[in-house]
Amino acid sequence: MTVQFSDAQASAQPVVRNRLDAFVASREFDRPTLVVDTALVARQYRALKAGLGRADIHYAVKANPERKVIETLVNLGSHFDAASRGEVELCLSLGADPADISFGNTVKRASDIAFAHAAGITLFAADAEEELEKIAEHAPGAQVYIRLIVEVSQADWPLSRKFGCDRDTALRLLDYAKELGLNPVGFSFHVGSQTRKAEMWGPTLDALALIWHDARDAGHDLSLLNIGGGFPAFYGEAIEAPTAYAAAVMAQVTARFGNVARIMAEPGRGMVAEAGVIVAEVMLVSRKSDRDMHRWVYLDIGRFSGLAETEGEAIRYQFETPRDGEESGPCVMAGPSCDSADVLYEKRPMQLPLTLKAGDRVLIRNTGAYTSAYSSIGFNGFPPLAVVTI
Amino acid sequence: MTVQFSDAQASAQPVVRNRLDAFVASREFDRPTLVVDTALVARQYRALKAGLGRADIHYAVKANPERKVIETLVNLGSHFDAASRGEVELCLSLGADPADISFGNTVKRASDIAFAHAAGITLFAADAEEELEKIAEHAPGAQVYIRLIVEVSQADWPLSRKFGCDRDTALRLLDYAKELGLNPVGFSFHVGSQTRKAEMWGPTLDALALIWHDARDAGHDLSLLNIGGGFPAFYGEAIEAPTAYAAAVMAQVTARFGNVARIMAEPGRGMVAEAGVIVAEVMLVSRKSDRDMHRWVYLDIGRFSGLAETEGEAIRYQFETPRDGEESGPCVMAGPSCDSADVLYEKRPMQLPLTLKAGDRVLIRNTGAYTSAYSSIGFNGFPPLAVVTI
Repeated sequence: MTVQFSDAQASAQPVVRNRLDAFVASREFDRPTLVVDTALVARQYRALKAGLGRADIHYAVKANPERKVIETLVNLGSHFDAASRGEVELCLSLGADPADISFGNTVKRASDIAFAHAAGITLFAADAEEELEKIAEHAPGAQVYIRLIVEVSQADWPLSRKFGCDRDTALRLLDYAKELGLNPVGFSFHVGSQTRKAEMWGPTLDALALIWHDARDAGHDLSLLNIGGGFPAFYGEAIEAPTAYAAAVMAQVTARFGNVARIMAEPGRGMVAEAGVIVAEVMLVSRKSDRDMHRWVYLDIGRFSGLAETEGEAIRYQFETPRDGEESGPCVMAGPSCDSADVLYEKRPMQLPLTLKAGDRVLIRNTGAYTSAYSSIGFNGFPPLAVVTI
Repeated sequence: MTVQFSDAQASAQPVVRNRLDAFVASREFDRPTLVVDTALVARQYRALKAGLGRADIHYAVKANPERKVIETLVNLGSHFDAASRGEVELCLSLGADPADISFGNTVKRASDIAFAHAAGITLFAADAEEELEKIAEHAPGAQVYIRLIVEVSQADWPLSRKFGCDRDTALRLLDYAKELGLNPVGFSFHVGSQTRKAEMWGPTLDALALIWHDARDAGHDLSLLNIGGGFPAFYGEAIEAPTAYAAAVMAQVTARFGNVARIMAEPGRGMVAEAGVIVAEVMLVSRKSDRDMHRWVYLDIGRFSGLAETEGEAIRYQFETPRDGEESGPCVMAGPSCDSADVLYEKRPMQLPLTLKAGDRVLIRNTGAYTSAYSSIGFNGFPPLAVVTI
C-alpha cells in the first residue's frame, strides 16, 4: 500500500512515505521513538534546492542533529548553520567542509569562537557591539553578517525580539566591524517560524531591502544575504510544495535585492519535519468526574520528552491510531510525567476515537524537527526520546 | 565569612551555607553547573522531619534525582516517591528499602507496574478505573491510594486538573479497587506547588476532610493520608521556616483527620531547592535599538538547559553578580540557544548592574530543585546542565 502525505493536494509531487510506514508497522518499540527516513530528508533537500537555485542551503542543525541526518546532507552537498561549538564539531566529524559551516548564533561563548576559527570556520553572525568585539578578538578578520530584527512577520509563530537589531544599530555595526578589522559582508534575518505561504515573505523582504540599499548607499559593499529559515512543514494547515515555495521566495528576493553575490537559506523544520514520525503509546484514558465532557488521554511522550513545541498549544500535531474511523470524541491530551504543566492540548481538545485505551499505539506525524532535540535528559526518570534512522 | 540566606528573617534558624559558597568561589566552571551541598539537604530533611513528626517523608525524586542527594536521604531514613520505573530503580540501587518507595505517578506503564511489584513495591497511586485495572493485573493485591482533585488552592502555582478525580469518582474507585482484589488504603492530594504559608493549606484540607469522612462513613477503612508536596523554597517572597511550617501543616491535618494510622508527605522542591546554586556566565549584553529602555542580557543557561521553570516567568530566581552594589538598570534575560522562546524574563525585566558584561560570573540561588532534571539532552548542541555535589 502506498501512503501519501495528507497534504498531497497542496503539493505538486505527492511525497511517498511507504518505506517509513512499512518500517514502523513491522517493528515493536518499547519506548517512545522518533523514526526518521533519510530518503525523505534527501528528497526534501533536492526539492528545496531545486527551488532555491543558486542560494546555498545551510541546514539548521538544531532542528535535528541526528548523525545520519547530517551525513545524508553532507553527501548531498548541503552547507550547515551551527548554533554552538557542539554543532560545529558534529558537522566537522561527519565530513562537512569548514568553509560550508556558518556559526549563526548571535550569542557565542568567546572560547567557542576561538575554537571555530581554529577549525576553519570563516563566517559568523552578530547583532551587537560586544559580540563583534568577541569575534574580532578570537576570529580576527572573519566575515560577519549582521542580524536584523523584523517586526512585520506573517508567520504562524512570529519570533520574539531576542535576535537581531534595528536599522540604525545595524548600520553602525557594519562600520564598527570594519573598525575592528572584521569583514562585514551582509545581513541576515528570520521571517518567522512556519511561514506557510511564500507570499507572506513580501512585507519582511520589503523592509529588509530598504535597509540593504541604505547600507550600500552608505558605502558598504554587501555581498551576502542570509534569508534564514521559516520554511514550513505540514501540521494540519495547507502549505505550498517545497520547490514552488522556495522558487517563489527566491523570485521575491531577486526582485528586491537584484544580483546578490551570495545568498544563504537556513531551512531546519522545512527540511526534516516531514521525514519523521514518532511512535508512541496510550498510557491511560480517564475522566476526572462524571460531569466531564471530555476524556483525558495520557501518552508515554509529553512536553519534556519530545513534544516541547506543544507549549501554548502552538503546534497541533497529526495523530493516527489503529482505531481511526470509529466514533470519536474530544480529549485533553497529556504527557506521562508527574508535572501538571505536562499537558499537550487542553484549550482546544483533540478528537480521538472513543474506544482508545491504554496500550494502543499512536503515530505522531511530521515530527522529524524540534522533537528529539528538545527532549529532557531524564525528567521523572524517563529516558530521552529514542531516535531511529532508516 | 558566614553567608546567610537572604530569607533569614523568615527563618527561626538562619541557614548557613558557607561551605557551598566557599566551594563555588574557589572553583572555575567551564560550563553552567549546578552545585548541590548534601549537608544542606540533610539539614533541611531534619528540619522538615522535626515539624512533620510521625508523618513519613517520601522525597519526590523528580525534583532532583542526583545520586548523592538520594544517598544522603537514604542514610537519613527518608522514604521516596517515584514517578517511573527509572526512579524506582535509582532508589533501589542506592539502598532504599522497597517498602519505603511509593509509585506515585497516576499514569504508569503496565510493564513498569509489573517491574515495581516484582521489586517489592507495595504502594501505588491511581485516579482512574483503567489505572486500577492495570495495577490489579500487574501488582495483584497491592495497596492503592486514590488521588483527589483539589480546586481551592492558594499556592503560588495551582496545579492543572491533570491529576486526581472528584469526590464521587474517588468513592467509586475505592469500591472498584476492592472488587479488583486491591487494597484501597486512602487518599492523596496536592495542595499546589510553592504553598508559601502553612495557613494556605486550610481550605484544601477542609475540602479533603469532607471526602475522607464520607468515605469512612461509606464503610472504607482508610488508613493512609498522603498530603503530597507544596513545601516551599525561597524565591524572593517570604516563606516560613521549615520546621514551623511543617508543624503547622500537621496541626491542621490532625485537627481535621484525627489519628490517621499513616501519613505521608512528599516534599521535593522544599527539600532540595535551597541546597543548590547554579554557576552561570554572561554571554552577551546588548541593545536592540538606541531607543530601547532596557538591555538584553544573555546567559549561558536558559529554558532548555536547566531554567525550564521560568516558563511564563513563574519563578523569579535570585541572581548574584560580582558587580552587585553598582548602579543597576532593567534587563531582559535570555538563554544562549537560537530559540526565540528561550527568554527567561521579559514582561518583568530584572534589575542588574549596568557594568555587567560578557564573561561575568552569575550565581543563580536556590536552584537545587527542578533545574538539572528538566535540562534537554543537547538542544542547540549545548550539553545538559552539569551537576556537582559536595
